[in-house]
Amino acid sequence: MKIKSTILLPALIAVQFISAQSPLVNKVKAYTQSNQRRIISEFADFLAIPNVAKDPAGLQKNASFIMEAMKKRGIENIQLLTPHTAGAVPAVYGEVLVPGAKQTLIFYAHYDGQPVNPAQWAKELSPFEPKLYTGAIDKNGSSIPFPPNGMYLPEWRIYARGASDDKAGVTAILNAYEAIKASGVQPSFNLKFFFEGEEEAGSVHLDEILAQYRSLLRSDLWIICDGPVHQSGKKQIAFGVRGDAHLDLTVYASKRPLHSGHYGNWAPNPAMMLAKLLASMKDEKGRVTVKGFYDDVIPLTPAERKALNEVPSMDEQMKNELGISRVEMTGVSLNEAINLPSLNINGMQSGNVGILASNQIPTYATAVIDLRLVLGNDWKRQQQKLIDHIKAQDYFVTDHEPTDEERKKYGRLIKVIPGLDGYNAQRTSMELPIIKKVIAAVISTKNGQVVLQPTMGGSLPLFLFEKYLQATTITVPIANHDNNQHAENENIRLRNLWDGIETMAALMTMKNE
Amino acid sequence: MKIKSTILLPALIAVQFISAQSPLVNKVKAYTQSNQRRIISEFADFLAIPNVAKDPAGLQKNASFIMEAMKKRGIENIQLLTPHTAGAVPAVYGEVLVPGAKQTLIFYAHYDGQPVNPAQWAKELSPFEPKLYTGAIDKNGSSIPFPPNGMYLPEWRIYARGASDDKAGVTAILNAYEAIKASGVQPSFNLKFFFEGEEEAGSVHLDEILAQYRSLLRSDLWIICDGPVHQSGKKQIAFGVRGDAHLDLTVYASKRPLHSGHYGNWAPNPAMMLAKLLASMKDEKGRVTVKGFYDDVIPLTPAERKALNEVPSMDEQMKNELGISRVEMTGVSLNEAINLPSLNINGMQSGNVGILASNQIPTYATAVIDLRLVLGNDWKRQQQKLIDHIKAQDYFVTDHEPTDEERKKYGRLIKVIPGLDGYNAQRTSMELPIIKKVIAAVISTKNGQVVLQPTMGGSLPLFLFEKYLQATTITVPIANHDNNQHAENENIRLRNLWDGIETMAALMTMKNE
Repeated sequence: MKIKSTILLPALIAVQFISAQSPLVNKVKAYTQSNQRRIISEFADFLAIPNVAKDPAGLQKNASFIMEAMKKRGIENIQLLTPHTAGAVPAVYGEVLVPGAKQTLIFYAHYDGQPVNPAQWAKELSPFEPKLYTGAIDKNGSSIPFPPNGMYLPEWRIYARGASDDKAGVTAILNAYEAIKASGVQPSFNLKFFFEGEEEAGSVHLDEILAQYRSLLRSDLWIICDGPVHQSGKKQIAFGVRGDAHLDLTVYASKRPLHSGHYGNWAPNPAMMLAKLLASMKDEKGRVTVKGFYDDVIPLTPAERKALNEVPSMDEQMKNELGISRVEMTGVSLNEAINLPSLNINGMQSGNVGILASNQIPTYATAVIDLRLVLGNDWKRQQQKLIDHIKAQDYFVTDHEPTDEERKKYGRLIKVIPGLDGYNAQRTSMELPIIKKVIAAVISTKNGQVVLQPTMGGSLPLFLFEKYLQATTITVPIANHDNNQHAENENIRLRNLWDGIETMAALMTMKNE
Repeated sequence: MKIKSTILLPALIAVQFISAQSPLVNKVKAYTQSNQRRIISEFADFLAIPNVAKDPAGLQKNASFIMEAMKKRGIENIQLLTPHTAGAVPAVYGEVLVPGAKQTLIFYAHYDGQPVNPAQWAKELSPFEPKLYTGAIDKNGSSIPFPPNGMYLPEWRIYARGASDDKAGVTAILNAYEAIKASGVQPSFNLKFFFEGEEEAGSVHLDEILAQYRSLLRSDLWIICDGPVHQSGKKQIAFGVRGDAHLDLTVYASKRPLHSGHYGNWAPNPAMMLAKLLASMKDEKGRVTVKGFYDDVIPLTPAERKALNEVPSMDEQMKNELGISRVEMTGVSLNEAINLPSLNINGMQSGNVGILASNQIPTYATAVIDLRLVLGNDWKRQQQKLIDHIKAQDYFVTDHEPTDEERKKYGRLIKVIPGLDGYNAQRTSMELPIIKKVIAAVISTKNGQVVLQPTMGGSLPLFLFEKYLQATTITVPIANHDNNQHAENENIRLRNLWDGIETMAALMTMKNE
């Protein structure tokens, strides 16, 4: 396999970073450092392509961009995996078959991003105009131009939607392959690449894609490159993920907005009704009061419990960093909290606030709830528990705007739209031979502890891989923990990108006797 | 006094509407009906001028428009009453001195409107593009052009910000004067006109204007033309108004938005915190739980209690009309509720809902509260009761975004900004001789009951007239009760405008032996 001469630039090696680890890691480090300018330039071009669900044309451009990047790297059998359902966003596939390899790894990342509200981003940022900063923008990082020839410092960050979640994953995987190829190292497994385009939209067609392309996607292990490393900065391997489910709630009051002077405290106020309903969902200690909410949970095995106990406690550092001195659930550590099902308000709205506020009683109040699930929870059952709770608060639950008849009949009316994009949690055994190899490979890239996380906080539809492919999955995240994923000012710290390339390269070349 | 020939159009009298009442009312009715086209045309031009607080230039244009309209009608001594404070919006003044009149009436309305959020208005409406409808837009009213020569049906409505609150008041007063003048009827009082420009901004400079122009504004009675008639459609006289006070609340959680999977149920959720805080302010029966909230209230006199008992009960009709079957305060009628202090959520917001929702934990949650007051409440004391309640919920209350030090020190942080635009309630005695004349005059325009309302739901800074001018006030509202004032789709029903002109004319000419 030949590498195009255009991507072989003179090495500009920053010696202080090569103190490490395995010979492979040193080779990859040397390669990425001498190719920083080109890697970042390609990454920035990638980030400039809008990748939100409501922009199918933008998603298509992202897919084309990835296919071109794979082609440049000599990856073969490149194709879109298009499900039959009209309007579904295809996944991008490619592969490298290695002579003599007996097993196959398939690397997963996703190219779509969360919705953006540009008004919420820092004034100088725009979600799809990637910008370079000397550090975190909320810690006095300042904007600098992309240096045309210079070196990039590892603490610098790039801000854009998808910078960490999960175009960083796509970029790390593709450049890891490029680096080992350029270094003349042979992968020890057949390599497959799978880049999803609907992850942030709930992977609604992933089941269809997996079923439809079952034989193409055959592998011994899916390596999921998504999510952040541990908050301590240590690399981590996550053996499972939380599941996820949503509900949209809309409480209805008067059919028309009312003057609060003429009707205040007589006509029902939907904001107060919603406040009371939401407040009923948690007790004063932050425990969810929904009946049976913590049932169904499959406890951790002794090995998982041991690993969890060894996960560094980040509670004090995170409180300090986030500017909070009180946690939601009294007496529960962050590590423990992630291994419990959760109920969280993503947003709520009624009437107007700020300069648009007026003396009215609004007509409705709405909230978006997300439920995170752990192993044992079924996402639809978990949604139903919340619906039952709402009914128990004397609400008539409908799936439409209430009719006049319903308004006459019921004192409390709520529209509940359970999201159709939910999925269950998943957990892979730490005892599998191939998983032990993964642990060893990640440790080989690093001098310090690698955190073994029984459950990662983020949700990924990993149960689908089990269900449709009987596949094993393992998650190896690379982004900095303070990356603002899913919110405004999303960013990636460059050191995490370089580390990610090394980790992915180590996995592609891990021993497989 | 001569009427310009341009405004003496051939009378097109719709006989069916002239079945009424006093000879004066019949004359006014005939006049307005024959001048409908011109009155509506002028009114629509007036409504097309934006009148929100954040647009001082727009407010100035409104004032100029009114001055011109007064000039056309031969009103004298027209001037802007400009307070010394820079940036204050002036009131518009004019007068008609009547030979032999011993007493003076001063007619009040306001020309500014509530803020607008055009996105919340019906698709086909724009707040400052007045449109004519065949009925209420939420009851299948349809848009029709302003008829160039035709008659206007009394059930038609005009939609625009200020259509009822309170450009209808300005228009009714000016056209009432025009009608009696054209009819050759002599007013029985000196007439003064006072049109405020900051009522919806809390009348923040009204005290200054009243103090500064004390001698110019001397009068025996202020007649306040603002607010809606009774929901039964009956005319009403309001002897008092509720007071009003605001508070802006912002609960702070993490300094940056967090991924709900990684931090959900560990990091505090500000929307849940705010929901619990708001929920703590009312009990299950809708009673405000803030300590001392119902103290200070001066009870109704026996005459006021009697009048209140005679106010028609609108509870069932309003429930039906508003599409509600449950009221906020169990067992309390609308008439009773208005005579109690209230706490109402105007708006609340945290994170994003709908298509912009994402799996985050927001950084803050905010709500706007309005407190309506009754006689005896002091608006600052009432605000303080709520602040004390918030403190009792274990909140550290600040007036700024919390500092890092404060974040470290306090588990629950809230910024509370008490509005500076509050004012107290007011109530005028029903037993005063001039008030008895007002009651008789309004009754003379109508065959049915005139509702005598001890307290009107809406708030007006009437206590200021007592405080600065030792003046007596009485409120004679004219708008339809379903006018959407203070919200989207504000409108006036034309019959209310015509009725309003008749009522104002009857007051200008009421007997004064």
